Amino acid sequence: MNPPRALLFDVFGTVVDWRGSLVREGRALAARRGLDVDWPAFADAWRAGYRPAMDRVRSGAQPWMTIDQLHRGILEELLARFGIHELSEAERNELNRAWHRLRPWPDAVRGLKRLKTKFIIATLSNGNMSLLTEMAKHAGLPWDCILSAELFRCYKPDPQTYLGACALLGTGPDETLMVAAHEEDLAAARGNGLRTAFVRRPRELGRPSGYNLPRDNAFDVVADDFNHLAEQLGA
Amino acid sequence: MNPPRALLFDVFGTVVDWRGSLVREGRALAARRGLDVDWPAFADAWRAGYRPAMDRVRSGAQPWMTIDQLHRGILEELLARFGIHELSEAERNELNRAWHRLRPWPDAVRGLKRLKTKFIIATLSNGNMSLLTEMAKHAGLPWDCILSAELFRCYKPDPQTYLGACALLGTGPDETLMVAAHEEDLAAARGNGLRTAFVRRPRELGRPSGYNLPRDNAFDVVADDFNHLAEQLGA
Repeated sequence: MNPPRALLFDVFGTVVDWRGSLVREGRALAARRGLDVDWPAFADAWRAGYRPAMDRVRSGAQPWMTIDQLHRGILEELLARFGIHELSEAERNELNRAWHRLRPWPDAVRGLKRLKTKFIIATLSNGNMSLLTEMAKHAGLPWDCILSAELFRCYKPDPQTYLGACALLGTGPDETLMVAAHEEDLAAARGNGLRTAFVRRPRELGRPSGYNLPRDNAFDVVADDFNHLAEQLGA
Repeated sequence: MNPPRALLFDVFGTVVDWRGSLVREGRALAARRGLDVDWPAFADAWRAGYRPAMDRVRSGAQPWMTIDQLHRGILEELLARFGIHELSEAERNELNRAWHRLRPWPDAVRGLKRLKTKFIIATLSNGNMSLLTEMAKHAGLPWDCILSAELFRCYKPDPQTYLGACALLGTGPDETLMVAAHEEDLAAARGNGLRTAFVRRPRELGRPSGYNLPRDNAFDVVADDFNHLAEQLGA
């Protein structure tokens, strides 16, 4: 393939370990407040709630809401379901902001720094701009530019997100490589003319699983982590 | 004043020396192609053309165009006016991209790095996203986030640019400090509830002039450069 000019990164699961980070935040909160909660189950339920909540926005059943707002709504349901009644409004908001403090996979920062020497590196996430900006600051993610579905008021995998990101960066779709650990995201990017790189994140769900194994060979690059991606792209 | 959470920076003239940079690029091009051009006059005319071109967009007389597109149109007129007929289409595009390679004022990178340790630092420029992204990469500007009038499809000093930037960063206007070397920009920011910092850039027009002297005392901070700004903000 011709070298790309810009790399767009999915973030949740691809750059950061949302599950491990939420479990750690939850356990720290539980220790402070004397709670007894199954945090892995809580984290999985929080993430599982995101898709149906986003689909209500995508279908138009609900007006535009950011991921912060969607997460906050799901959190309220989960606190009730898990029997957590002790938290104040301020504590609930603080817990919701755990998504702004997600930690990168161990290879992510170094791999991104390598890739940044050769390419424009930007996010293309359904996370809102403030979430992604604070996450980058907290985790030291060296983005050239932060782009979010929020800018287009529609969520991936809508075409406008991929094409809108290319337009803002001034790169043609065929000069732009979408990097993700999820097939659906990459299939949509490819359908809009972008190049694709699949990164294996077998521990995204906390245990090795088939979830992150690509089922087809249609990706331009398949990498074990961001350093492996950098290596294959000559960075 | 209460400490702000985020700082928004005007870019042309405030962070980068557009005039000195364009003159240097023009002279290098002239040396390569054997041209004889008054580059300071050329740079001034290019910048002077930006405001009326932008106003045609702001008034609705012209549909949305990015600064890259506006600069390209003005460049065409200037090449004719200055009698420069030798340049190919590729050379014209390359010259237009000189705006992506503007150099920062000597204090800018260090001052921004200091400010970044304490605040979210973002651009709020009329320059388009790809221009600002490439400029940051080229000049080593350590933005947490790049925001542009392009995201709102209206130009400063329209209220939507200031309020839209605050909304994307998740900071209230009164938690957000607009930093600029131009009174009009700051007056509009203040009119929308933002805090303001005036930075003196007396050589923006190439000679010390009254152009960058504030006429009122309504700014929250007045600074001689970004290090002086950092000092006053405790960063």
